[in-house]
Amino acid sequence: MGEFGLIDHLTQGIKPMHASTQKGIGDDAAVLSYPDKKVLMTTDLLLEGVHFDLVYTPLKHLGYKAAVVNFSDIYAMNGQPKQITVSLGISKRFSVEDMEQLYAGIRLACEDYEVDIVGGDTTSSLTGLTISITCIGEADSDKIVYRNGAQETDLICVSGNLGAAYMGLQLLEREKKVLAGTDHDVQPDFAGKEYILERQLKPEARKDIIEKLAQAGIKPTAMMDISDGLSSELMHICKQSGKGCRVYEEHLPIDYQTAAMAEEFNMNLTTCALNGGEDYELLFTVPLSFHEKVQEISDVRLIGHITKPTLGCALVTRDGQEFELKAQGWNPLKQEKN
Amino acid sequence: MGEFGLIDHLTQGIKPMHASTQKGIGDDAAVLSYPDKKVLMTTDLLLEGVHFDLVYTPLKHLGYKAAVVNFSDIYAMNGQPKQITVSLGISKRFSVEDMEQLYAGIRLACEDYEVDIVGGDTTSSLTGLTISITCIGEADSDKIVYRNGAQETDLICVSGNLGAAYMGLQLLEREKKVLAGTDHDVQPDFAGKEYILERQLKPEARKDIIEKLAQAGIKPTAMMDISDGLSSELMHICKQSGKGCRVYEEHLPIDYQTAAMAEEFNMNLTTCALNGGEDYELLFTVPLSFHEKVQEISDVRLIGHITKPTLGCALVTRDGQEFELKAQGWNPLKQEKN
Repeated sequence: MGEFGLIDHLTQGIKPMHASTQKGIGDDAAVLSYPDKKVLMTTDLLLEGVHFDLVYTPLKHLGYKAAVVNFSDIYAMNGQPKQITVSLGISKRFSVEDMEQLYAGIRLACEDYEVDIVGGDTTSSLTGLTISITCIGEADSDKIVYRNGAQETDLICVSGNLGAAYMGLQLLEREKKVLAGTDHDVQPDFAGKEYILERQLKPEARKDIIEKLAQAGIKPTAMMDISDGLSSELMHICKQSGKGCRVYEEHLPIDYQTAAMAEEFNMNLTTCALNGGEDYELLFTVPLSFHEKVQEISDVRLIGHITKPTLGCALVTRDGQEFELKAQGWNPLKQEKN
Repeated sequence: MGEFGLIDHLTQGIKPMHASTQKGIGDDAAVLSYPDKKVLMTTDLLLEGVHFDLVYTPLKHLGYKAAVVNFSDIYAMNGQPKQITVSLGISKRFSVEDMEQLYAGIRLACEDYEVDIVGGDTTSSLTGLTISITCIGEADSDKIVYRNGAQETDLICVSGNLGAAYMGLQLLEREKKVLAGTDHDVQPDFAGKEYILERQLKPEARKDIIEKLAQAGIKPTAMMDISDGLSSELMHICKQSGKGCRVYEEHLPIDYQTAAMAEEFNMNLTTCALNGGEDYELLFTVPLSFHEKVQEISDVRLIGHITKPTLGCALVTRDGQEFELKAQGWNPLKQEKN
């Protein structure tokens, strides 16, 4: 198969699921219909060697993740992802089979989250793999949650647990160094570490949390997904809302595999939870009156509260000391505007 | 200025122009509103060394072009571009001033074509510059023009002229070779070649043609923009419409600078016009009954007609011979689906 047929090959059999996808792949532009909803739009650019390392990242997982991180941004607006375009820059190093794997991951994510692939392009690249995905989603106008709505006394909530994807990355980086130059048949022993690896290699977007909040009749006052680390995201919410916050170390949700790995690496666990990136959990604030309701939602934890701005943003440690939060972000070179 | 502030710096002062832009830069996703229109979506990925050469491409021009090529895809659907997201991958080689230049070009294009920048990201790259732009546009449902609507006896029309951008590229490539290793103070003499250089370095999208067609009450039966060359695009329209075509060599619109350059390079002018890419002119078909109306539109040329499919796609030369059209496309490695 010549390269000319590659995108046809990769996209064959793709059929739109949504009524909002009126025309998908195959013309100068896709045609979408949103008469009753607001349209949400987010984009993400992933570069080999900067955002992913193919030494330990299976291409199918990479495709899945590249799609899911965009869905996560749509959920973080309290919306539903509906369409994506996929642009790939591919060097000669990659075979058609490689691209099939990558696309299989993208398509799997789209099936799991019910999203239509409506366009994109493939192009040769001089070096490495480039993946650019743009996602369109929908939301009712009165349901959209921005970053700037947090109010004093609001409760700060987070889904799932923190720092796991970061520790998964540390583990993979260590094994890469250990294995470099050694017998390639030696397989690293990841037994008991499956969870943190999966958090790094195949993260999920928290569609379930958005659904549970809706079922409980809770509309957050502010929301973000955690891609750069809790500290960084919380500071965004506080800055844009013109508020401060207190987060309690003892309430930070951390999985035992994350904790075990941090101990093995002799790393500060709280720092990992605060600054580890790529968790793709949801960080949101709700009015104090929702205290009981939000506590009933499984896999959501209350970690602190919003304050007046003069108090700044601080972590309260187990012994009652306060430390100012800093945005050490997992990847300060990658700056998303949405 | 640290890199952390780069995207804030580049996007400062950007204010949405359109009512459809309800929330632009600054959250997990932009919020758009399209209650009465269809939404058009297109995307383009540009990689240094593959799609552009910074030896002779000023960054401001590159930014302008990167935006305009996306607008062109929206016009090719008979729509209006309204919003873009801009993602940049930037290696250490580039300064903040470089990125200011690039962004200045993108912003100028957005001002000229009245398009809002609503998001994106900047990230470091290991090598070279990566630009990924996604454009959202709007169109009335009954005005959208696809590629698949061409009918037998329809007239084939093209705006502007063909092959100019390609000849501009040839000129720049030649000067690059001539100047390599020589005194950098020697400036190439581009006198009399300004037009073809501008067509290559700072192309425009044919918003004016879309407006003129609307004013004349003409809705094309099929339309595309010419990014890969007339032959390639015409074959797309014929294939998707299930038709054939005849294009007349004598009617191909060619600027005299293009012709002069082709002679200087000893290249076949018709081949340049048929296969030269990046013209971003509009190729469209209209019913035969619009013959007089479409001829009255300035800067539109009738170049042939649609036939039944069994006749295939062919060029009719000045001496009456027929040659089958071939999609030699300017850049066969770049395959756009939209």
